[in-house]
Amino acid sequence: MSSIFGKVFQVSTFGESHGKALGVIIDGCPANIPLCHGLIQKQVNRRRPGQSGITSPRNEPDKIICLSGEENYRTLGSPLTFMVMNKDQKPEEYKKNNHIFRNSHADFTTYQKYGIMASSGGGRSSAREAVARTIAGSVAHQMLSHFLPAIRILAFVSRVGPIVAATNELVADEQLQPDQIDAHPTRCPDQAVQTAMLEYIEELMTRGDTIGGEITCVIRGLPPGLGEPVFDKLNSDLAKAMMSIPAARYFHQGNGYESTYHQGSENNDPLSVETNTGNIIYTTNKAGGIEGGISTGAPIFFQVGFKPPSSIQHQQSSVTKQGIPSTYSLKGRYDPCVLPRAAPIVESMACLVLADHYLRQKIQSWIPFKESRS
Amino acid sequence: MSSIFGKVFQVSTFGESHGKALGVIIDGCPANIPLCHGLIQKQVNRRRPGQSGITSPRNEPDKIICLSGEENYRTLGSPLTFMVMNKDQKPEEYKKNNHIFRNSHADFTTYQKYGIMASSGGGRSSAREAVARTIAGSVAHQMLSHFLPAIRILAFVSRVGPIVAATNELVADEQLQPDQIDAHPTRCPDQAVQTAMLEYIEELMTRGDTIGGEITCVIRGLPPGLGEPVFDKLNSDLAKAMMSIPAARYFHQGNGYESTYHQGSENNDPLSVETNTGNIIYTTNKAGGIEGGISTGAPIFFQVGFKPPSSIQHQQSSVTKQGIPSTYSLKGRYDPCVLPRAAPIVESMACLVLADHYLRQKIQSWIPFKESRS
Amino acid sequence: MSSIFGKVFQVSTFGESHGKALGVIIDGCPANIPLCHGLIQKQVNRRRPGQSGITSPRNEPDKIICLSGEENYRTLGSPLTFMVMNKDQKPEEYKKNNHIFRNSHADFTTYQKYGIMASSGGGRSSAREAVARTIAGSVAHQMLSHFLPAIRILAFVSRVGPIVAATNELVADEQLQPDQIDAHPTRCPDQAVQTAMLEYIEELMTRGDTIGGEITCVIRGLPPGLGEPVFDKLNSDLAKAMMSIPAARYFHQGNGYESTYHQGSENNDPLSVETNTGNIIYTTNKAGGIEGGISTGAPIFFQVGFKPPSSIQHQQSSVTKQGIPSTYSLKGRYDPCVLPRAAPIVESMACLVLADHYLRQKIQSWIPFKESRS
Amino acid sequence: MSSIFGKVFQVSTFGESHGKALGVIIDGCPANIPLCHGLIQKQVNRRRPGQSGITSPRNEPDKIICLSGEENYRTLGSPLTFMVMNKDQKPEEYKKNNHIFRNSHADFTTYQKYGIMASSGGGRSSAREAVARTIAGSVAHQMLSHFLPAIRILAFVSRVGPIVAATNELVADEQLQPDQIDAHPTRCPDQAVQTAMLEYIEELMTRGDTIGGEITCVIRGLPPGLGEPVFDKLNSDLAKAMMSIPAARYFHQGNGYESTYHQGSENNDPLSVETNTGNIIYTTNKAGGIEGGISTGAPIFFQVGFKPPSSIQHQQSSVTKQGIPSTYSLKGRYDPCVLPRAAPIVESMACLVLADHYLRQKIQSWIPFKESRS
Repeated sequence: MSSIFGKVFQVSTFGESHGKALGVIIDGCPANIPLCHGLIQKQVNRRRPGQSGITSPRNEPDKIICLSGEENYRTLGSPLTFMVMNKDQKPEEYKKNNHIFRNSHADFTTYQKYGIMASSGGGRSSAREAVARTIAGSVAHQMLSHFLPAIRILAFVSRVGPIVAATNELVADEQLQPDQIDAHPTRCPDQAVQTAMLEYIEELMTRGDTIGGEITCVIRGLPPGLGEPVFDKLNSDLAKAMMSIPAARYFHQGNGYESTYHQGSENNDPLSVETNTGNIIYTTNKAGGIEGGISTGAPIFFQVGFKPPSSIQHQQSSVTKQGIPSTYSLKGRYDPCVLPRAAPIVESMACLVLADHYLRQKIQSWIPFKESRS
Repeated sequence: MSSIFGKVFQVSTFGESHGKALGVIIDGCPANIPLCHGLIQKQVNRRRPGQSGITSPRNEPDKIICLSGEENYRTLGSPLTFMVMNKDQKPEEYKKNNHIFRNSHADFTTYQKYGIMASSGGGRSSAREAVARTIAGSVAHQMLSHFLPAIRILAFVSRVGPIVAATNELVADEQLQPDQIDAHPTRCPDQAVQTAMLEYIEELMTRGDTIGGEITCVIRGLPPGLGEPVFDKLNSDLAKAMMSIPAARYFHQGNGYESTYHQGSENNDPLSVETNTGNIIYTTNKAGGIEGGISTGAPIFFQVGFKPPSSIQHQQSSVTKQGIPSTYSLKGRYDPCVLPRAAPIVESMACLVLADHYLRQKIQSWIPFKESRS
Repeated sequence: MSSIFGKVFQVSTFGESHGKALGVIIDGCPANIPLCHGLIQKQVNRRRPGQSGITSPRNEPDKIICLSGEENYRTLGSPLTFMVMNKDQKPEEYKKNNHIFRNSHADFTTYQKYGIMASSGGGRSSAREAVARTIAGSVAHQMLSHFLPAIRILAFVSRVGPIVAATNELVADEQLQPDQIDAHPTRCPDQAVQTAMLEYIEELMTRGDTIGGEITCVIRGLPPGLGEPVFDKLNSDLAKAMMSIPAARYFHQGNGYESTYHQGSENNDPLSVETNTGNIIYTTNKAGGIEGGISTGAPIFFQVGFKPPSSIQHQQSSVTKQGIPSTYSLKGRYDPCVLPRAAPIVESMACLVLADHYLRQKIQSWIPFKESRS
Repeated sequence: MSSIFGKVFQVSTFGESHGKALGVIIDGCPANIPLCHGLIQKQVNRRRPGQSGITSPRNEPDKIICLSGEENYRTLGSPLTFMVMNKDQKPEEYKKNNHIFRNSHADFTTYQKYGIMASSGGGRSSAREAVARTIAGSVAHQMLSHFLPAIRILAFVSRVGPIVAATNELVADEQLQPDQIDAHPTRCPDQAVQTAMLEYIEELMTRGDTIGGEITCVIRGLPPGLGEPVFDKLNSDLAKAMMSIPAARYFHQGNGYESTYHQGSENNDPLSVETNTGNIIYTTNKAGGIEGGISTGAPIFFQVGFKPPSSIQHQQSSVTKQGIPSTYSLKGRYDPCVLPRAAPIVESMACLVLADHYLRQKIQSWIPFKESRS
């Protein structure tokens, strides 16, 4: 009931942060899709701890193991299963504080819900659970690319605390490449601010503090027609997917945050006929590529806000499981800012939503999908 | 595939804006719940057009008819079905423009998806579809109140365009009453700004323009433990529910928007022991009552942003179904601002999410729910 | 949770036997499917009481009303809703005995489950609930016929008590027509036994008794490839669908009942190449058109056994809701044998399963479906 | 889409017969349930090949590995994951014939569905897939036993080909023990026929042939109230579960097969008041413990028929993937009769259905479940 996502492209994830393994079954991926393990591993690596000076140094190789569902690097139509073994779990370190409910963590609520907790670390609420999301997201991405070769899905850091990148320009940049995002440890491709962001984070690390911010995701090459008109709107399923990432605190569709301050006459996106193709297109795209819950064919973009990680290294007062006021301070490894590692998770969750809605639209489709515009 | 919501408290809605009727089946409501039709009708009326000078004058009595699932005002455990007949549909007016894809409406995307459209008006994408949501939401509310008598779910207008209410104070006000919200046509209970909001909207009406804004929802009296730790987090399901409301453009959890600008040392909510009860509680509530996707027992609150309605009365250029550039202007009835009528819909969608997760937690519950704190 | 069927072609039914109305929402039917109300009404009429001397004389016109989802007799892609009003409900008659749990009815178990019962008659457990199944089944049939014009789905009475029709011959008869089934009140198309069946039932009526029997269903024109290999096998979903019909007591796939007495060397269906087409086909079809849970392209056939109706007119001893031993006898209208009216319900449930799996296979299909063989 | 079972107690299985591993995620099992790995392993072993002279000698240790979801042998509420590694897969042997569609196997239909097949052996259609069902079934059994200590779920072989056990007596025997079933390689506890069954099977093995038969399952100690009144009847979900087991060909509820030959006056189960307890009970139990889709509190019993295995060792004619008529003969290891190994699978699938419906009824339950009668 807790760890299954999707209606027809269904992923089922498992694994505690400090247990034996984490993994995922992907049930519903069509057969005969070429599947490159290297691409999956690459996306997993982008989420790995220890990848830069501003991420937790927990040393997990996160080497993916495929247990089922493919042969000769093509999908069989049967459930695909992947897992990674935990290597550097150090549950002892967590056990030191595990009698205390950590502030702004899931400890207290997990205990309230289940009456039991994994003895070491965050169980299912750990950010480590997202390794399964990146595996599944990469499979979804590869399936989408097989059917829609023009598709491009990119997420980047658009703000760290108060330091803001030129987001509108980055969204509009059709030439933005994944390498530009990964070229900097912040995963912010705006060269004008990335150094300031990095220094800001490094300064916080000296004080054991953390910072929030925002990720922006842009999807190009998706045809019109994806998404359902009432509850399972493409934007509502994206919102759910994004808000399910640990520490996510807001979701903005397109220019939607600004638009709520605007008048209709300023905000409407007009339709027109594209000169060279004769296609009907939206001349502007304040809606972020989705109208009435259904993709328009224009680029989809949205922002996801993340709170600062709760695991600061200051001494904090809280309460033990026995209800005794107490203090604690987390020493060990920590992430001063989740954003650089959250970018691939945002991409992965977007891929899961799109893969599901793409396959759902295959049921409905009255005409072959038209080529999409970017 | 498009109009079913919920895992165990499942609602299935139907009806086109200008068809014969709209309605809903609610499948999964436990038996023996007292059900007051008057309360349902009251919530439906709060969404009705024509209720004030700043809402569309479409005259729909929206009288609810119960077709199944109850006897003597108690639920039987079988599917509850309610509908309202459409009376004032005027499809002819819509047919005048129905060869044109209206800008920033669902016309173009619906046509791309299905290759066919309801000949008159917005079909399933019309805001009118929400009448079924308010019916189902009221049933959910009554079920929740039966099991959790202390529960209070209130949504109000917290911003119209640039005019902002004292939201933090309203969220903190434990005495805020529904009547205070309904006492003003804006549904903003902040007396310091409600007149300015109303005048702002009325001025826009003279120009046939529209405006966006924000609704804030507060939920008190919910026990800790509701929500699932991975994909079906309480906040992610709330985000999905809210973003599925027509014209919704953003979702903010708790003080989440601000928190993304903050450092962890400023943002953490500390746990402590409540002096008089000995209960473990969160001393502050920046998280908005949800940690790790699970309710903490503190009030849940969130904001939903709405774009300005697309149906302005200016002349606009767009494209016909045949792909011919054309202009159109909508005369007839329109809503200059959806916010006052959206407030009950936000409440209703919140109720659907909470009812579903409440029943899901009955499966899990290892102890009877503790009384909750507000 | 109780009344929704299907994964992608989802039907949600409602209505108590003696309530205001019964109906169904069909969510997931593709757009642009021609929909003939006459065909729906015809299938509904085939299930109606009062259609012959051996069915209950309850007089229900069962006139279908369409509330949503279509325009100009084409589906819009939105939820289709149909209902019939109850006219001849006579709840008073039922109320006479409603303090007693009727033997072999759902009264006792419903009360144990919900702690409440519809005050009059069978609530959701009534055979009358099936009117919604026949509506939805006809929509499913029309959708299947649109995509697979060669499809033929026929159910007929193959046994009444001990009187057995020449079932194997009827299954093999490619020319069997619906009219041959409906030409006789028993809905048994075997002229050699239908008179004996009728007289057998009529004799039972003189004694107020009832009889069980069997229905056989044959499906021709389905392509290979429908059904899923593990849990959602085509045969397991058919079994579920059939066993969900009130009074159903067994399900036999193909010649499966006999095959369980046989040796593998007698039972295997060999594959061969069809001379004129070059297609690979099964030379024999003991499996009833399904191998490994997936359709083979050969005709699908199965049997469903029905117990004798529990509503006999003899005096019976039972227990009241208060736990007092008591006797009762049902006078009023009754069905001495459900089989003639169950035949269209079996067809309808088969259509729902096939429609769902057909649409699911559209997600998977790597090649356009081949024409099927009969 | 193919390998997920259950609404709230959801299992997701994976693994090809000759792949790296097979396993299962169980999502939705409540927290704090004691979990004994030894009991799981024991049930897995009862399905293992090589356990007797009349089962396939494939040598698979099938040692279960737990990857997630528990700590100190108690469930955490998070997804439980178990797997077994394949050791003795011998894909080469299967590759010899893998260009030929084996008769009455899933080869042809799998290829029609997916356009691709696992290169070696049966992929997901292999009986080996059931190892995941036995793991999940044992977890379900342990959960049920935790909440309903009196529950007993037993399946035994009640017929091999034409040799029939005294089934009614075995069903009625409240003292029947698991050990009596496992004491004989046939898993038929009727000492009067078990030797004849064994000799019958052994004789078939000398000729490389196979045989079908029947398994009967009895469930005691279940409270009334489980199951839903319309589509998700307890009997319809049991029918689906049983018919999803490879080679299953029929499902009979209670004495349902016989009852279809009977008159209502012979077949009704009368209710009465139990003298010593004052409970309302069914005096007879022809319905097999389920009325209107809901458990009555009396023992549930049903029969499942299995066809003879298709893998006989005779030479057979079939067709290659290229459409060329060809012959083949399977040498290697084979099962002359699936029944002894199918008995634990029938139990396991019954446990999955009951666990799901038990948890679903926790949502509904208006009163604590009463103790059940056997």
